[in-house]
Amino acid sequence: MKKFEEKTYHTETIYSGKIVELNIDSVTLPDGNTSKRELIKHPGAVAVIALTPDGKLVCVEQYRKPLEKSLVEIPAGKLEEGEAPYTCALRELEEETGYTTKHLQKLTSFYTSPGFADEIVHLYFTDEVTPLEEKVDGDEDEFVELMELTLEEAEQMEKEQRIHDAKTAYALLFLKLQRDK
Amino acid sequence: MKKFEEKTYHTETIYSGKIVELNIDSVTLPDGNTSKRELIKHPGAVAVIALTPDGKLVCVEQYRKPLEKSLVEIPAGKLEEGEAPYTCALRELEEETGYTTKHLQKLTSFYTSPGFADEIVHLYFTDEVTPLEEKVDGDEDEFVELMELTLEEAEQMEKEQRIHDAKTAYALLFLKLQRDK
Repeated sequence: MKKFEEKTYHTETIYSGKIVELNIDSVTLPDGNTSKRELIKHPGAVAVIALTPDGKLVCVEQYRKPLEKSLVEIPAGKLEEGEAPYTCALRELEEETGYTTKHLQKLTSFYTSPGFADEIVHLYFTDEVTPLEEKVDGDEDEFVELMELTLEEAEQMEKEQRIHDAKTAYALLFLKLQRDK
Repeated sequence: MKKFEEKTYHTETIYSGKIVELNIDSVTLPDGNTSKRELIKHPGAVAVIALTPDGKLVCVEQYRKPLEKSLVEIPAGKLEEGEAPYTCALRELEEETGYTTKHLQKLTSFYTSPGFADEIVHLYFTDEVTPLEEKVDGDEDEFVELMELTLEEAEQMEKEQRIHDAKTAYALLFLKLQRDK
């Protein structure tokens, strides 16, 4: 048995939508008692730390409905059904920024909210981007604006909470570490 | 109007539970078309980067039902209704690790999954912990095991994906940057 495993004895699917599925699992706890867990299923996502030839970080600003405000983030998006993370990362980079690359390096992956959701973000890095010759269209209900930021500009935006999400915060620490090497 | 704002003209609450609420918002997009957004409301959370006097990172291992496996993470937990993040951070540190502190420094905050959820994590730091004289009980349906890790041990666990969540990945980069200073 896995450590502290919680065995499911009943699953109720509350909602199954375009992006998330919500299940309520009834579980048996390690001490034999029972509890309920609210669980969000998500297809997973990718994000790309992309640097332009002059060392600027490629970001996009977009409206984030759950927060009712715009955030500046590194390009990212969710996996289509059956899509490999690498393919998705390249697609999102092209759609959201108009850049492409031949060298996309996998850095790491992490779960964003392991307490209630299974969303995983696969994080990639490239410092070799070139502009696409022809623009690629993204999702028709997605509106994003490209930004290219020095690390200092990005850190200033973080102070102002215009950059305010986990993957972009991680990206800024990663770049700071690289620079200090 | 906020940049790229999406105006809600209808909200349907699908589920309102102990931790999450799921709403479907019907929205008008910046180009006048309409779309639907699946939105998870979450009370918000805290996490603590806590170092023992000998410089080890205080972590807890716990079963994460959404992933059906145990993860090793920095201590964390969700805000109770009306609870201040600082109070919550101290409470979670005490409940999950048996340590307390008089010096809890706010580092930053970030949204974990801005595409579909409003969960925010408030991140704190302390390198001055002392063991509690009397153990404080945490949630009755929560089972955690304390671990104290050197940065090298934690990085090894990250390679093995036993450490595999955004806030702890951020914490390891933060500590690496501190050490390299």
